[in-house]
Amino acid sequence: MASRDGYQWTEKSGLVKGVPSIGVIQPASNIGGKQERYDVIVVGAGYCGLTAARDAASSGLKVLLLEARDRIGGRSWSSNIDGYPFEMGGTWVSWGQPHVWREISRYNMRQELELSYDFTKGVNHFTLTSQDGSRNMSHEEEDKLMQSALEKFVNVDGNIGKTVMPFPHDEFHNPEVKKFDKLSVADRMAQVKHQLSPDEYTAVLSFVMLCSCSTPDKTSFYEFLHWWALCNFSYEYCIEYLVKYKFRGGQSSFAIKFFEEALATGRLSYAFSTPVSHIKEHNEGVEVRTRTGSVYKAARLISAVPLNVLNDITFFPPLSQGKKAAASTGHVNKCVKVHAECRGPELRSWTGVNYPNGQLLYALGDGTTPAGNTHVVAFGADHDRLTPEKDIEVTKQALQDLTKMELERVVFHNWADDEFAKGAWFFSPPGLVTESLDDMRARQGNIFFASSDWAVGWRSFIDGAIEEGTRAALNVIQDLRMKGGAPLRSVL
Amino acid sequence: MASRDGYQWTEKSGLVKGVPSIGVIQPASNIGGKQERYDVIVVGAGYCGLTAARDAASSGLKVLLLEARDRIGGRSWSSNIDGYPFEMGGTWVSWGQPHVWREISRYNMRQELELSYDFTKGVNHFTLTSQDGSRNMSHEEEDKLMQSALEKFVNVDGNIGKTVMPFPHDEFHNPEVKKFDKLSVADRMAQVKHQLSPDEYTAVLSFVMLCSCSTPDKTSFYEFLHWWALCNFSYEYCIEYLVKYKFRGGQSSFAIKFFEEALATGRLSYAFSTPVSHIKEHNEGVEVRTRTGSVYKAARLISAVPLNVLNDITFFPPLSQGKKAAASTGHVNKCVKVHAECRGPELRSWTGVNYPNGQLLYALGDGTTPAGNTHVVAFGADHDRLTPEKDIEVTKQALQDLTKMELERVVFHNWADDEFAKGAWFFSPPGLVTESLDDMRARQGNIFFASSDWAVGWRSFIDGAIEEGTRAALNVIQDLRMKGGAPLRSVL
Repeated sequence: MASRDGYQWTEKSGLVKGVPSIGVIQPASNIGGKQERYDVIVVGAGYCGLTAARDAASSGLKVLLLEARDRIGGRSWSSNIDGYPFEMGGTWVSWGQPHVWREISRYNMRQELELSYDFTKGVNHFTLTSQDGSRNMSHEEEDKLMQSALEKFVNVDGNIGKTVMPFPHDEFHNPEVKKFDKLSVADRMAQVKHQLSPDEYTAVLSFVMLCSCSTPDKTSFYEFLHWWALCNFSYEYCIEYLVKYKFRGGQSSFAIKFFEEALATGRLSYAFSTPVSHIKEHNEGVEVRTRTGSVYKAARLISAVPLNVLNDITFFPPLSQGKKAAASTGHVNKCVKVHAECRGPELRSWTGVNYPNGQLLYALGDGTTPAGNTHVVAFGADHDRLTPEKDIEVTKQALQDLTKMELERVVFHNWADDEFAKGAWFFSPPGLVTESLDDMRARQGNIFFASSDWAVGWRSFIDGAIEEGTRAALNVIQDLRMKGGAPLRSVL
Repeated sequence: MASRDGYQWTEKSGLVKGVPSIGVIQPASNIGGKQERYDVIVVGAGYCGLTAARDAASSGLKVLLLEARDRIGGRSWSSNIDGYPFEMGGTWVSWGQPHVWREISRYNMRQELELSYDFTKGVNHFTLTSQDGSRNMSHEEEDKLMQSALEKFVNVDGNIGKTVMPFPHDEFHNPEVKKFDKLSVADRMAQVKHQLSPDEYTAVLSFVMLCSCSTPDKTSFYEFLHWWALCNFSYEYCIEYLVKYKFRGGQSSFAIKFFEEALATGRLSYAFSTPVSHIKEHNEGVEVRTRTGSVYKAARLISAVPLNVLNDITFFPPLSQGKKAAASTGHVNKCVKVHAECRGPELRSWTGVNYPNGQLLYALGDGTTPAGNTHVVAFGADHDRLTPEKDIEVTKQALQDLTKMELERVVFHNWADDEFAKGAWFFSPPGLVTESLDDMRARQGNIFFASSDWAVGWRSFIDGAIEEGTRAALNVIQDLRMKGGAPLRSVL
């Protein structure tokens, strides 16, 4: 089945909207005409909503899962084109990410991982393109450059960040760290620029902009410190945890496990292509209205709606001032993710940066397609944003600006302009996390808010989504049990 | 409540059997006179059994949990003496351990961790005692010595093990690695001894013997390679993941969360101080007989019984040849864990090794008691095994042999002579893992076998116990659902 999401281009077909994905669910709904009161409605079927729905249904609750898109996975999903999985959003996982690894282990998928990098085939170099021109270096030189540049960038405590953020999963353990959320990446670059060579300057900035897909002035230095701490305070583990291991069958082969487990309980009702417009909360429970006017009722609701689109739903009573403000500020990640299938094997071992002039700032050889071509994945950020669905020729040029390649196919998802996400993975502007994290996480009456966007561990990641879905389901189960209300009577 | 397990000694009280623990469950059983057929019986209430019982009960199954001891936690439990938690078995946890961290996150206990090490108070040195005498060095020197020695020890591939074990959670990914299970640690030491200084020789051997608590000839080199890979191939992360972070309230404050959650489902029956003697499996289910002759029936059974005592239960039909053989071989960890409360703050920042002559081979300052004394934890292995319950004076001398200390109190658990464990955490002799892992993990009819002893990730650890309990519960739930049998009718 093809999803409405994503695009692909080939010389032959031109630009086509929608790409096939095993994450598209058919039939799109299993509700039929029945009207019932659910124990919990989960809004959003990304990893967070899927985890919440699965855990709630497994614990005996009657669950309704509503999703605006035609597919599961939210900001993490894979299209499968001619037998090859292109990752349209969140891609990489690792055993350094506890929640996601627990699930990979539980679903016995440990042996379904493969490496993004393969430096044994092809050109085997890194291309650094900056305002000063372009040159190639070895991957060993790339690693040294990145490590050295990043260590200077994060070294606010003479201990590469270990003193200010000793517990990455308890980020404010040393409250001193909060002051770094006042700094943008631009501010921090100004502090360290005298220590950086021109290559180091480009290297660190392109890497951090790959993380935020924003601009230096809109990116919180603090949030990068948090990522750094999560990655064992080392560039080696940034690679290890952030961009190395992916599913042979694509992300949707993982997400579908959650959905199937929930469905197998016999307690999951669901409707896809069903955007929610209103959520009303009252003493007895919640009421949801969809854009097409259907109304669903439940005792509790889990909103797994991303921060940047939270204000697009009308809540009654209204969202707290804190939540509203956080959602208006929003996170800053405006990633446009572009895959290129390029003729031949040469680029399999290539990585490259093109900053600040490139509209695609970072790319790497990510796989070999069944046709024997190389798959290169590239990331566009907010400094000079691509809209590939409007101008595919500009996008093709942005790929060529990274390194010369013979394009057979382009596949992309423009997350910045995605109606149901308005951005890719969470990355905070200065101030947002330290000021609004508690607000974003807070419950409002019978509504629980869950999203990777406000996870405390691997915030922004699939891991954070599962962390949050886990939390929300447990909270709802405990809440219903404590109240001794009707919802659990059927189970206990 | 005091458990029957563990011992403590003070000058005033002498040697006393049993120490207080919040892991002791009262009442010891909630079964009463009722006779019913359970969906699943879980034998063993360590982290593995607790996880299995919790997950099964949460999913709507009627669970009976049987435990030989008077407490939860199995080989991980804490006693609380005068407001201070002494860890009697498994102690340390980390966010590098995915299953345990998922639970710490889920129970919102991220802020309940504290550091074992504190180098800011007291002597601040490491004491290395070998056949050549004893001397002190700085912790920086200790780290350098250990790092250098261990890298030589594991460097079988010119890449400190990264090439032979690239995926620590898929340990046989490179099948070449299996040959290292033919080597004992003694064999490997013979290969590298020409590269090691006398200090390095003592350092590496004492560290590896701390991991196995056995003897070099009985310890698999392969299994240590697996630990090394799990610890990011670095001594820094051996410390980080193996001996650094512990619960402020002790392990039992964590284990009790699993038990309470299971109990709150209303579907958990349990009986402590109830050793199982016979397990019979037949087409319709399982039948368990206890030592006192009670009989319990269920559709399925999860044995969370450790490897070294598996043959102490009579199975019918008998255990497979593979399981029997693995259990007869057994794992080799014969740890005697000894805590010392020493007068004053000086040893808080002390670490020490005493090998091969010391009966306690490794120790570290692990905390400060409410009385302002230092808590030192020490480990005895199999080369010259202590039996502190028989000779406390010898044990006190073994402590003194590590470094001079004024003993206020000694607290210990002799795991080697523990009837229900016959050893501490799993550590394999050469050959056991490569030959028997599949056998140990295999299901037999309606019986599922789960234990940290045969986990595929953090085997031997609390993390592995949770991994295995998770697997067993999921397998039982799916099995019962697939069969469409009676057991799930009550829930679906």
